[in-house]
Amino acid sequence: MPRKNWIPFLKRLQGLRGIKYWCMGGGKIASELGKKLGIEPNYVNGRRITDAPTLSLVTMVYGGLINKNMVAALQAKGCNSIGLTGADGGILPAEKRRVTDIDYGYVGDVKSENIRGELVMKFLQSGLTPVFAPLTYDGNGGILNTNADTIAQEIAKAMASHLPVQLIYCFEKRGVLIDAADDTSVINSITREDFKELKEKEIITGGMIPKLENAFEAISEGVESVIIGHADDLAELISGNTGTCIR
Amino acid sequence: MPRKNWIPFLKRLQGLRGIKYWCMGGGKIASELGKKLGIEPNYVNGRRITDAPTLSLVTMVYGGLINKNMVAALQAKGCNSIGLTGADGGILPAEKRRVTDIDYGYVGDVKSENIRGELVMKFLQSGLTPVFAPLTYDGNGGILNTNADTIAQEIAKAMASHLPVQLIYCFEKRGVLIDAADDTSVINSITREDFKELKEKEIITGGMIPKLENAFEAISEGVESVIIGHADDLAELISGNTGTCIR
Repeated sequence: MPRKNWIPFLKRLQGLRGIKYWCMGGGKIASELGKKLGIEPNYVNGRRITDAPTLSLVTMVYGGLINKNMVAALQAKGCNSIGLTGADGGILPAEKRRVTDIDYGYVGDVKSENIRGELVMKFLQSGLTPVFAPLTYDGNGGILNTNADTIAQEIAKAMASHLPVQLIYCFEKRGVLIDAADDTSVINSITREDFKELKEKEIITGGMIPKLENAFEAISEGVESVIIGHADDLAELISGNTGTCIR
Repeated sequence: MPRKNWIPFLKRLQGLRGIKYWCMGGGKIASELGKKLGIEPNYVNGRRITDAPTLSLVTMVYGGLINKNMVAALQAKGCNSIGLTGADGGILPAEKRRVTDIDYGYVGDVKSENIRGELVMKFLQSGLTPVFAPLTYDGNGGILNTNADTIAQEIAKAMASHLPVQLIYCFEKRGVLIDAADDTSVINSITREDFKELKEKEIITGGMIPKLENAFEAISEGVESVIIGHADDLAELISGNTGTCIR
């Protein structure tokens, strides 16, 4: 690969100092780098597989490139952060997904009850803000690839027995929309009853349904609120002035 | 790059579970991966330069691929380790090397007095064994590439005011050799007087001279002993039964 093709990609990564670039998402960065390395995404029956080369790729990109640059960017903003994968302190133990009709490869399923919440508390009490890469630990020397939304949710649930928890999901929309084509049609707040109604009226459809089901599951396990919105609005999402709030 | 060329490289990385493979050294792994990405080592006046693509490369390889796999391998051996770069907790602050006749690029110089030894102590007191990647933090959102031997030495010096420190350097030889061609000619122990004599007799030459000068500097700043030997012999190096001991 000629060097000139590699540099623009890295320049974008250098753009990290303005965190908004990271709306791109780690998966896309890993895919782009994988392409340059000749690691094509591996699909079986339409499902993405984490084979050995992909595991090394995501360990580099999620655990190294993105995580450590995020930590450095946060440090510069006065947030004393620490970058972690599930292997660090054995903090996120996971089980390699069992082979059924599909072998997902090096994919880990993490459950809140196994997460080392007391270690997260120690970091917080030391003034450190953990930044988790979406990588878990198989208990036997192996790293596993795990969905980032799931990790966030399971950590939130694990921490709910230690302190009040607000879980914020950032994506490319301003929140849950009444009209997917209209970015201003954000639904401010959704209760369980609202959700049932919105599903029946087919206002909430597709991938948003499992997202919200997971949010309500987190609430039922002690998380105070789940907020969904745009990464650019993070400060306002935290203060509850924008995005969609699920209670 | 065809996939088949990439896989053997990663297979070797998968070999991590037997830690001895890591005698290969992180620099060589980064160079090998860099070649596959079209990042050629950049030299100015014979000195290796860390340009922006190389910085991203080493952040991925040192901070992600190697560090996190080492942590996972240590966890499996019952060592509750945590992988850190200098940005994590701002633990290894460094100064970007000033441009004189050469611009080394994103290279950081670290000094023991700036290292956050009290944070290292907190990790140790929590039962965590820090594993440092050779990456430091510029205090302004940027990661810097730093020589691993130097980091080890500066951390050892920083920790000497907190607890007794033994610094062990592993390389591809069994220790400092009287005859470079004879692996059994290990010098068991070197004092300052011995060192002076061995230099005069040209038994110790080349790159070993700065290594040993650094070792004596560490001793003079409170490190109890510096041991140099082969990674395969780590347990015996720790117990002092092999390698070269500098006091």
